[in-house]
Amino acid sequence: MDFLQLADRIIDHSAGDKQQADSAAVRDRRRTLTDFSNIYSKELLPASGGDEMTKEFLQELLKILLAYICKSTRRSAKVLDFHHPHQLKEGLEGFSLQLPDQPETLEQILVDCRDTLKYGVNTGHPRFFNQLSSGLDVIGVAGEWLTSTANTNMFTYEVSPVFILMEDVLLKKMQSIVGWSDDEGDGLFCPGGTISNLYSILVARYYFYPEVKTRGMGVLPQLALFTSEHSHYSVKKSAAALGIGSDNVVMVKCDERGKMIPVELESSIVTAEQKGLVPFYVNATAGTTVYGAFDPLNDIADICQRHNLWMHVDAAWGGGLLMSDRHKVKLQGIERACSVTWNPHKMMGVPLQCSVILIKKRGLLQECNELGADYLFQRDKPYDVSFDTGDKSIQCGRHVDVFKFWLMWKAKGSEGFGSQVNKCLENAEYLYDQLQRRAGFELVFKNKPEHSNVCFWYIPPSLRSLPPGPKRDTRLHQVAPQIKRRMMEKGSVLIGYQPLGTKVNFFRCVFSNPATQQMDVDFLLNEIAQLGEDL
Amino acid sequence: MDFLQLADRIIDHSAGDKQQADSAAVRDRRRTLTDFSNIYSKELLPASGGDEMTKEFLQELLKILLAYICKSTRRSAKVLDFHHPHQLKEGLEGFSLQLPDQPETLEQILVDCRDTLKYGVNTGHPRFFNQLSSGLDVIGVAGEWLTSTANTNMFTYEVSPVFILMEDVLLKKMQSIVGWSDDEGDGLFCPGGTISNLYSILVARYYFYPEVKTRGMGVLPQLALFTSEHSHYSVKKSAAALGIGSDNVVMVKCDERGKMIPVELESSIVTAEQKGLVPFYVNATAGTTVYGAFDPLNDIADICQRHNLWMHVDAAWGGGLLMSDRHKVKLQGIERACSVTWNPHKMMGVPLQCSVILIKKRGLLQECNELGADYLFQRDKPYDVSFDTGDKSIQCGRHVDVFKFWLMWKAKGSEGFGSQVNKCLENAEYLYDQLQRRAGFELVFKNKPEHSNVCFWYIPPSLRSLPPGPKRDTRLHQVAPQIKRRMMEKGSVLIGYQPLGTKVNFFRCVFSNPATQQMDVDFLLNEIAQLGEDL
Repeated sequence: MDFLQLADRIIDHSAGDKQQADSAAVRDRRRTLTDFSNIYSKELLPASGGDEMTKEFLQELLKILLAYICKSTRRSAKVLDFHHPHQLKEGLEGFSLQLPDQPETLEQILVDCRDTLKYGVNTGHPRFFNQLSSGLDVIGVAGEWLTSTANTNMFTYEVSPVFILMEDVLLKKMQSIVGWSDDEGDGLFCPGGTISNLYSILVARYYFYPEVKTRGMGVLPQLALFTSEHSHYSVKKSAAALGIGSDNVVMVKCDERGKMIPVELESSIVTAEQKGLVPFYVNATAGTTVYGAFDPLNDIADICQRHNLWMHVDAAWGGGLLMSDRHKVKLQGIERACSVTWNPHKMMGVPLQCSVILIKKRGLLQECNELGADYLFQRDKPYDVSFDTGDKSIQCGRHVDVFKFWLMWKAKGSEGFGSQVNKCLENAEYLYDQLQRRAGFELVFKNKPEHSNVCFWYIPPSLRSLPPGPKRDTRLHQVAPQIKRRMMEKGSVLIGYQPLGTKVNFFRCVFSNPATQQMDVDFLLNEIAQLGEDL
Repeated sequence: MDFLQLADRIIDHSAGDKQQADSAAVRDRRRTLTDFSNIYSKELLPASGGDEMTKEFLQELLKILLAYICKSTRRSAKVLDFHHPHQLKEGLEGFSLQLPDQPETLEQILVDCRDTLKYGVNTGHPRFFNQLSSGLDVIGVAGEWLTSTANTNMFTYEVSPVFILMEDVLLKKMQSIVGWSDDEGDGLFCPGGTISNLYSILVARYYFYPEVKTRGMGVLPQLALFTSEHSHYSVKKSAAALGIGSDNVVMVKCDERGKMIPVELESSIVTAEQKGLVPFYVNATAGTTVYGAFDPLNDIADICQRHNLWMHVDAAWGGGLLMSDRHKVKLQGIERACSVTWNPHKMMGVPLQCSVILIKKRGLLQECNELGADYLFQRDKPYDVSFDTGDKSIQCGRHVDVFKFWLMWKAKGSEGFGSQVNKCLENAEYLYDQLQRRAGFELVFKNKPEHSNVCFWYIPPSLRSLPPGPKRDTRLHQVAPQIKRRMMEKGSVLIGYQPLGTKVNFFRCVFSNPATQQMDVDFLLNEIAQLGEDL
């Protein structure tokens, strides 16, 4: 058995095999070129003559990683091998999280790597439906490996010439896809969609009240923001952090489908003004987290125009649909936004993290955030320093999130991303169709999915004859958590649930993993029905 | 020649060899197992039967990465191969940054990877002195490769059981090293030190004025913050973003060595109060960016105690010294801080990014930032949900920055980090000694380095006879930029410079790369003298 097959077996979550595999691992490791059991990291580079040992060590690591990658799409493998926090903390089968004073051997380091993967969650599994980000794109992973090997920072062209230019190229491409002209558009790659949304509020506030940067909120009127009740909590979170206050975020009512109601937005604006608040910002969502709903962007843009408000579109989840000729119509009006959040790490399958804030008006981001630290952003450098983008950011050091995305774009082309998005939405339509055909399942809303979100209840046989009302609701509210608990313990599939407004706990299925096929949708429904039958 | 040797040659920046190496690359690739020139990413996993192709592709990538890693510590290699932005944008020797509509072959993807490394900056080179983060730790890189392969998110235990617990273990360890008791301490891994510092201000404001979260800064008095004139610009940047206003950050005077003067702090506080401002927060720096100075923490803690102010210690750069029995004395008093920033990606050599905010009072971080989104942080989950740390954060999705650090700690032990820090400081002392012995070099301040920063001017022969004064200063101000330009064009070494206060441009050398040895210090000084001799 070569090490690769062996690593496969070890990572395989099948219980029972464990001890056998472990002792085989030890035997096998001794048969490989190098015995790492008495070698320490100080023998790796930069140690003199450490080249060979470094190569051998990373080759061994690669075997473990390759075994995991190959396994990640294998349906026979578990999605997770659940343990409670106290179990993992106590140290399972020799896997200790504790930090030593003395170094451990490279053998132990490799075992720790294997165990870390073993006790983790396989987010690339075709039956992992738990999060908006899923799948494991091989090119994306390759991009991240290279990024960490290059180990640099996004603050200046001086230390990141290639990555800084790639960011420029990608931002321009995304701006053009959003529909902005060549002389518009600015932006940054950010550590996640919440920070991207935070930037939109920060820059909007600066646009209307530039004095806030130096003098603070004390000299401003009491501002108000508007976002739908189905929107992401990041708008409130950012308003709290930025000193605007979460109470000054007005939650606008949605229709049954989860879309912001334009007339409600307009009346909320008027009401806020009557209360003495000063509206300045509206967040429209393109692809809500739970329902996958698209707010009516053109109607919202009209209202923003009438009231002179900053229009932001949170397309963290829905932005990917712009890559599909079939689905981009759902984002019509996005070109009228002053700013857009778009997370390629969601619908486009780029490894975590990869999120973008786009700002239509060029220069604002720099003006809003620059402080011009001399030690980093010297003006007397030997190149065009307008490429030193670090001072646009509220970070100083910034992780290189762009390369994996750039590499995936090279490898797939725009068209490849389009097909990938189409396939995910086809899976959602298939699930939607199946739910209508199967006994015991009930849709949370009737309409066909617009994004890849499908929301539904499973009604166990014991509840099917109960009339609608509080008694049924109380019992139904317990069903999804109980099924989820069994699912986690079994490790066969993973899907999220939540309550929303007056609706009790329901499942939300989302598709963003290109590995998922219709058979996985069938499996999910069968599994839910089986795990919940006796509830 | 095997592919590995070949990749070495290709990445080697030696001009002239380029065409020859390229055609050799094509020939050689054809001799390997797989010809990638007509294979596309759609044949990789999750494509059915994509296992073999995925393995072969990632093996090829590994060869490129290994060649780069081995080269990164080789002194004969260039630190960088400088090109202007317009040159790289135009596409050098076939390296095009443009994004295609149609997919490109895996052959092209591998060539793009090679070129990306070729035109980047080798931050692991023993003669890269440009940034506080340098070096390329093999275990750290291995950790990042695994992290990206696991591709998950830090918001819940549900999707990151192992990483969430590792974060808990590491935060507790760091808190104990700072000197906090077992029942104190909370924290988070953050995307960089600036965001860590932002958290400290955010939480301090919430601690004194919890109503700010819901009602905003409008209901608060006009706050004031204090930090030294040598401190990092992130304090001002955060004050601007959080709606406090950068003008309300009082810059406290430093002594000649760059340390905050306690009596100046106290008088600044009194003055601010007299102006009607309300002081609430003091940032003390442990290891300033340019001078590497340590503020007198105990004196500052006394003042904070007297005036009931939040004391933050920005030990982004200096925190690493806590790992060294020899040097930790420089941070005496840090245990009295209410919060601490510490970046293991700087002095401890962890790959970018790895930054931590520690908060002494437990629970504050959660209260300050939680919004309790139902779809993510359900209370009816089948495990102890106090491990779902995502709502402590101002992010939603959060990159896994903890694993590489955990793995390095396993591989080195606390003691290994200590020796690494000691070695960097020995290099600084060696440089300090050399500067005093060599003609043409002048120290910016006389004292022995406390951290690994050493600041100095090179005085070209033509300036040595000029008397001190504006004329000499004007000419001296041009020297460092001109030497840096030549250095970048030659690619032999990289070091930063900046002006500071009334001091004209000077070089700042920092040591954080374990690959650097005394011969590299000698090389640096020789190179500066040679490149600047005729100025």
